[in-house]
Amino acid sequence: MRLGAFVMGAGQHFAGWRHPEAEASSTEQLAYYKRLAQTAERGKFDLLFLADVLAVGASDVAYNAHNLRPDPLMLLSALSAVTERIGLAATVSTTYNDPFHVARKFATLDHLSGGRAAWNVVTSNNGDEAFNFSKTEHLQHGLRYERCRDFVEVVKGLWDSWEDGAVLADAATGIYADSAKVHELRHDTKHYQVRGPLNVSRPPQGHPVIIQAGSSEAGKRLAAETAEVIFTAWQTLQQAQAFYQEVKGLVAEYGRSPDELAIMPGVFPIIGRTEQEAEEKAEQLKKLIQPEAGVALLSFLISFDLSPYPVDGPLPELPDLAEVNGTKSRFQLLKELAERESLTIRGLYERVAGGRGHRQIMGTPAQIADQLEEWYREGGADGFNIMPPYLPGGLEEFVDLVIPELQQRGLVRMQYEGATLRHHLGLKRPSNRFAR
Amino acid sequence: MRLGAFVMGAGQHFAGWRHPEAEASSTEQLAYYKRLAQTAERGKFDLLFLADVLAVGASDVAYNAHNLRPDPLMLLSALSAVTERIGLAATVSTTYNDPFHVARKFATLDHLSGGRAAWNVVTSNNGDEAFNFSKTEHLQHGLRYERCRDFVEVVKGLWDSWEDGAVLADAATGIYADSAKVHELRHDTKHYQVRGPLNVSRPPQGHPVIIQAGSSEAGKRLAAETAEVIFTAWQTLQQAQAFYQEVKGLVAEYGRSPDELAIMPGVFPIIGRTEQEAEEKAEQLKKLIQPEAGVALLSFLISFDLSPYPVDGPLPELPDLAEVNGTKSRFQLLKELAERESLTIRGLYERVAGGRGHRQIMGTPAQIADQLEEWYREGGADGFNIMPPYLPGGLEEFVDLVIPELQQRGLVRMQYEGATLRHHLGLKRPSNRFAR
Repeated sequence: MRLGAFVMGAGQHFAGWRHPEAEASSTEQLAYYKRLAQTAERGKFDLLFLADVLAVGASDVAYNAHNLRPDPLMLLSALSAVTERIGLAATVSTTYNDPFHVARKFATLDHLSGGRAAWNVVTSNNGDEAFNFSKTEHLQHGLRYERCRDFVEVVKGLWDSWEDGAVLADAATGIYADSAKVHELRHDTKHYQVRGPLNVSRPPQGHPVIIQAGSSEAGKRLAAETAEVIFTAWQTLQQAQAFYQEVKGLVAEYGRSPDELAIMPGVFPIIGRTEQEAEEKAEQLKKLIQPEAGVALLSFLISFDLSPYPVDGPLPELPDLAEVNGTKSRFQLLKELAERESLTIRGLYERVAGGRGHRQIMGTPAQIADQLEEWYREGGADGFNIMPPYLPGGLEEFVDLVIPELQQRGLVRMQYEGATLRHHLGLKRPSNRFAR
Repeated sequence: MRLGAFVMGAGQHFAGWRHPEAEASSTEQLAYYKRLAQTAERGKFDLLFLADVLAVGASDVAYNAHNLRPDPLMLLSALSAVTERIGLAATVSTTYNDPFHVARKFATLDHLSGGRAAWNVVTSNNGDEAFNFSKTEHLQHGLRYERCRDFVEVVKGLWDSWEDGAVLADAATGIYADSAKVHELRHDTKHYQVRGPLNVSRPPQGHPVIIQAGSSEAGKRLAAETAEVIFTAWQTLQQAQAFYQEVKGLVAEYGRSPDELAIMPGVFPIIGRTEQEAEEKAEQLKKLIQPEAGVALLSFLISFDLSPYPVDGPLPELPDLAEVNGTKSRFQLLKELAERESLTIRGLYERVAGGRGHRQIMGTPAQIADQLEEWYREGGADGFNIMPPYLPGGLEEFVDLVIPELQQRGLVRMQYEGATLRHHLGLKRPSNRFAR
């Protein structure tokens, strides 16, 4: 079972930063992230996962502890110096970046960390980001994915532009590089014209691991074609199984083996030493959400302003899926959840303020392990991204209480066996397009 | 006397990577840079300085050990985790970046390092970079500087977008931020439209230190208006004094105190325990340059292809300065140097393969110290960027042999007194444009 430690601010729960086991005033400091990364490494996680957003939500700046986010690549680079084995995954948008920079930064991270880098490829779902990048509107969903596919192609090409063994550094002869093994890319499409070569040699992993986080139709196809991990969100085992089967089928359509893509839904765990302790903790977290904050969060998640509607009333009529220009899969998931469980606005924000659309699991360490094991055994997941409600406390509980339970069941490793993220995940090192 | 440790690949000298005290095969590894940074910190340098180029030189890929460069911001972020006091300066081009990313990455570095970040603002002088960023040609010099000025303005505005004290993280009340202290920037000019606020709070230094490296007319004006350090290149004390006086005068024109801008020319030191050892070392380095490599280097530096001309003949007729679209100041400096000393092409590349236009100083530790002290006392410089010929050996020699000599003379610190780069450099913390 693959495990990612998803660390965001002082925790995944919208009000988690108010919890006594959170450190809300430390979330821009290295010591804080060092503690998180070393805790996850102690728990033998496959990887540490950092999400990203390139804008501050104007509507909830007073309440939202997730508006401040150190740059994920910078942060992982610093963490590469204070960890030894754990994979380091950063979210970087293809909509507001240049492929040369992205190829170079991940190649650098892979070198500095000795082969532990992963790129979570997103196209940005937050329309406000456009205004920070001299754009007047967010690109349409379809175009974002079209550009994204091309962008990933450029990045992979740049990673190949120095073949393995191209750097000789032969002081005796004065030959630094074997120029026959250094290649221009000459990528020339509608979206990107990039000559190359990159100014960083081939990464230790060949290519850093590619993660994809979209679950829309376009997202699934892109993942099946190019990704090695999917980070996704499902509420029920049936949904997860259907997604799992569909995507593994798509992977085969692209001529790849199903093992080359690990499906890792997010889970939001509330852990107690007893069932009652877990339930009390869940109640405590709900009470920490201010209604204004909850409504703002929900409005953001479904790309629709709910503030004019009564908080204890039902959701209003929502637009058609086709009109949504944010995260389509998340919109659909929340709309269905509200209908299925007849939730009020308050009920829905309380429900999503934790997992934000990801599955909540609750109970004793054994019950948590049961819930993970069920999805894993029943073909719903190859592993999970663990999203602790508050940090660092919630991650420490998971590592101290749940990991030993999973280890006892033989579901996760006792020790790291390899040094690279590809080794942890059982992924092969990609061949180089230029090598003869 | 301010000191920067300028570390590039396995050393500043074009063939320095072939020297026995270089580690040419380690220049993409964290352990190598960690050793350099910790050595510079042991020498109580003000800062570690990383140059940058966003392209590989096709003409000299076999010989040039500087074609491979880990991303400087990523590298400094990693080094922030393994150093305590030394300033961390990265070169980032305004021509091929977005101000939001640049503001955020330097703000992140400033937080992670506890106030040690500096940005060396460049507009890119390497025309090949355009081809890696979907452009068909390099922007003209004047336009690059116009955009640069605007870019720096956006970045500083974003650094101010969260006032000091805006983050409350008050778990008891649930108020995370004082929204009256979080500001949209709404920058809207011809070149950049950026709303903000940034998603990183105000950096510990207020603004990371701004370094400027251009010495053209446009570069001097930009530096006088916006920079706190100038990194420059002069061969003679007279030139350095003239530049020093002119720039300090310009600083005053912009209503700033001359102390607010430190002028730090680069110097390329060849250190021996005796004069003879230093001379032998200089000869040894010259012999390590292949003629093809030397010609390629020189052609790059003056933006003019010298390969058709005999290596032991004089420089051909060169274009007028106005037609040069690379680094104008470097072109002028090299042309004058060849004329002044009647150098052949070989003579000129041997002369510049070391310092690349920066002043070479040679001799015993006391003689090196004399040469630095002279420029410092005579109004040629506020300090220096030390560019060791080979690394890590050349930096270790400087720290072990020259630093004690400078300390004895009371020219440099014995211990760090403050924790931030601004403190090391005696620069004040900038006020916030939004604060009342």
